[in-house]
Amino acid sequence: MKRAHGGDIYSFSKNIIDFSSNINPLGIKKEIISEIKNSIYDICVYPDIKCNELRYAISRKEGVDSDFIICGNGAAELIFNIVLAVKPKTALFTAPTFSEYEHAVDIFSAKKKYYTLKERNSFDIREDIIDYIDSDTDIVFICNPNNPTGRRIKKELILKILNRCEEVNTFVVIDECFMDFVYNGEKYSSIDFINDYDNFIILKAFTKMYALPGLRLGYAICKNKRVIENIYLSRQPWNVSSIAQNAGIAALRDTDFIKETIEYILHEKEYIQKEFKRLGVKYFNSDTNFILFKNKKEFDKKIIEFDILIRNCGNYRGLNEEYYRIAIKRHDENIKFIKAVEILIENDFNKGGV
Amino acid sequence: MKRAHGGDIYSFSKNIIDFSSNINPLGIKKEIISEIKNSIYDICVYPDIKCNELRYAISRKEGVDSDFIICGNGAAELIFNIVLAVKPKTALFTAPTFSEYEHAVDIFSAKKKYYTLKERNSFDIREDIIDYIDSDTDIVFICNPNNPTGRRIKKELILKILNRCEEVNTFVVIDECFMDFVYNGEKYSSIDFINDYDNFIILKAFTKMYALPGLRLGYAICKNKRVIENIYLSRQPWNVSSIAQNAGIAALRDTDFIKETIEYILHEKEYIQKEFKRLGVKYFNSDTNFILFKNKKEFDKKIIEFDILIRNCGNYRGLNEEYYRIAIKRHDENIKFIKAVEILIENDFNKGGV
Repeated sequence: MKRAHGGDIYSFSKNIIDFSSNINPLGIKKEIISEIKNSIYDICVYPDIKCNELRYAISRKEGVDSDFIICGNGAAELIFNIVLAVKPKTALFTAPTFSEYEHAVDIFSAKKKYYTLKERNSFDIREDIIDYIDSDTDIVFICNPNNPTGRRIKKELILKILNRCEEVNTFVVIDECFMDFVYNGEKYSSIDFINDYDNFIILKAFTKMYALPGLRLGYAICKNKRVIENIYLSRQPWNVSSIAQNAGIAALRDTDFIKETIEYILHEKEYIQKEFKRLGVKYFNSDTNFILFKNKKEFDKKIIEFDILIRNCGNYRGLNEEYYRIAIKRHDENIKFIKAVEILIENDFNKGGV
Repeated sequence: MKRAHGGDIYSFSKNIIDFSSNINPLGIKKEIISEIKNSIYDICVYPDIKCNELRYAISRKEGVDSDFIICGNGAAELIFNIVLAVKPKTALFTAPTFSEYEHAVDIFSAKKKYYTLKERNSFDIREDIIDYIDSDTDIVFICNPNNPTGRRIKKELILKILNRCEEVNTFVVIDECFMDFVYNGEKYSSIDFINDYDNFIILKAFTKMYALPGLRLGYAICKNKRVIENIYLSRQPWNVSSIAQNAGIAALRDTDFIKETIEYILHEKEYIQKEFKRLGVKYFNSDTNFILFKNKKEFDKKIIEFDILIRNCGNYRGLNEEYYRIAIKRHDENIKFIKAVEILIENDFNKGGV
C-alpha cells in the first residue's frame, strides 16, 4: 500500500502525539458528540440520499443555492466522484500537492501534467501556470491553501485561471479543505466566483475544522446541474452515513468555534515559527494549520522516539525526504515538539552534524 | 433522481411503518449501540485505511484469509469499486435484480445484456444462463438470493456459472447481502468456492442483518490479490468510518443473534404467506427476509394511507407496476400490514373489483 498519508497512527504506540494529520487542535465540539449520541438510532434506517437538511445548513453557511451542493463520504470521496463525472484524458496538478487527485485520474489512465512549485518562490503558484492550461487539459486541481506547503493563492490569479479554463473548456477543482483555518479566509476563498463559472467546483470538508476525520463528511459546490447529476450517478446513493449528516448539521450551528480556532492556530503558528527561527530550522510561512519545514533525512524516525509522529513528505512529487509537515496542535503538544526538535538538533551538533 | 429504492422514508410521516427496506425486524443489538457510544472519540482520528481489526473479525466469521477481504462504505460502494477495478465493456445482469449493478457499469457506458427471469419459473435462474456468458462478457452480476424476487440459486448451477466464466474469462460477482437470512444459508453460500476461482468475488453487508443501513458497512471477498489491489486503488483510502469499523467488530461477537433472526423470519414469513394465500394474493415463495407479490396498480398508494410503506417494483427491469416487495417485519407490524391488505381487498371486492 503505497498511498502513505498523515494520520496513520495504527502502526504506533497509543501514546503517540500525531502531528502528521492536520486536525483542529481544539478537538471535537461537545455538541457534536451529544448530537451523535442523541440520534444514534437513526443508523437503523437508510440515510437521506439527498442529504437535504445538511445541504440546507451548508447552503446557509456558504451563502449558495442548496442545489449547488453535493455531499460526500469525506471530501476525498468527492475527488474520485468528480473525476468519474468529468472522465479526464489529461489532468494538470501542481507538484507538490495532495496525492489523491492523481490517484483518482489513474482510474482513466489519464495523462498527467505537473506545474512544479519552486522552493525559491516559497512554493507559490505563479502566473505562468496559465501556460500549462491548454485545450488538451480536461481538468486542473488546485489545492488552496496547498497541502503540504500551506500556501494560498492570490484571488486575482484564481480569476485568471478560471477565465483561462473557461476559454479552453477545462474543468477546475479548487480544494479549499484548509481554507477554514486561514485568517480572513473569506477574503481568499473562491466561493465568490461560484455563480460565474460552469466548469468550476469547490471542495470542502468537515474533517479538519470539526475534528471529524473518522466520521467522513465533505461537500462540493458547483453551479452546473449536469456536473452535480454526473457526480451523483458516479457512486452509490447512500454514501453519507446518517451519523455524519446529523453531526454536520450540529457542527454548523456554532460559528464562534471557527473564529476561536483561527485565533488559536494563528497564535500557536507564531510560536512554532519563532522557535523554528531560533533553532535555525528552515520552514515555509504557512497560511493555514500546518507547516512545511526542512530537516535532515530520517528526522521523522528520530523524533518518533519522543512519541511524536510527523509527516515525511518524501512521497510528495516535487519534494524529497528532507521535507516534513507538521500540524499545529495544542500549546502543550507544540512545546513537546519544539523541545524534541531542540534536543535532536543539539545531539546532532555535538556529533558534528547540522 | 430516478434511482428509487426502498427505505426512502424522508418523504413520509414519522409514523410510517417501512416495509420497503429489508432490514432485520429484531433491530439493532444493544451491544452495537454501546460500542459506538464507548468508542465515539475515535472519530477524531483518521480511520484505519486497512480496516485490520474488522477484517480479522470477518476472516474468523467467514473462514477465509483476511487478505481476501476488503471493506466498503456499505456493499453498495463496493459494487462501484468492483466495476472501476474490472472496467467492463459488456456486463450481464438478471432482470429483475438490484439496479445499482447497472448504474455502476454505466460509468463506462458498458453494453448491458439481460437474462430475463420468468414468472412461470418463479423467477429462478435456469441453466440456460450459461448461453448468455460468452467471451465478450466481462462481468456478470448474480444476486443470491435475488432482490426483489427473494429466490436463491442452486449451488450446482453456481458452480456451472463459475466454470463457464473461468473458461471465457468473465468476472463473476455474487451478491450475498441477503444470504444471512436464509435458513441453512451456509448450505447455499458460494463461499466454499472462493479459493478455487480467480475471477470471482462475493459481496456481503452488515446493513441488513445488523440493522445498520444508516452506518454504511459491507465487504467483498476475493482470492485474487490484483483485484483487491485494484478495488483499493479505485477509491479514497479512508472510505470506512471508524464508527462503522468499531460497530462491525462488535456485531460479529454474537452469532446467536443471526440464528434467532433466521428463526423469527421463518416464522413470520410463514404467517404472511399463509395470510396471502387466504386472501388470494399471488406471491412468490421467498428464501430470505422479503417477499415479492402481485396486486393492482397503485396498491402502494392505497396502503400508504394506513401508514404502511411498501416497495413498488415498477422500476425493476423485467417487472411492472403490479409487483410489490415487502420486508418481513415484527409480528405486530406484519399483522397491521395483513389487516390493511384485507381491508383494501374487501373494499375493492365491494366495488366489484379484484
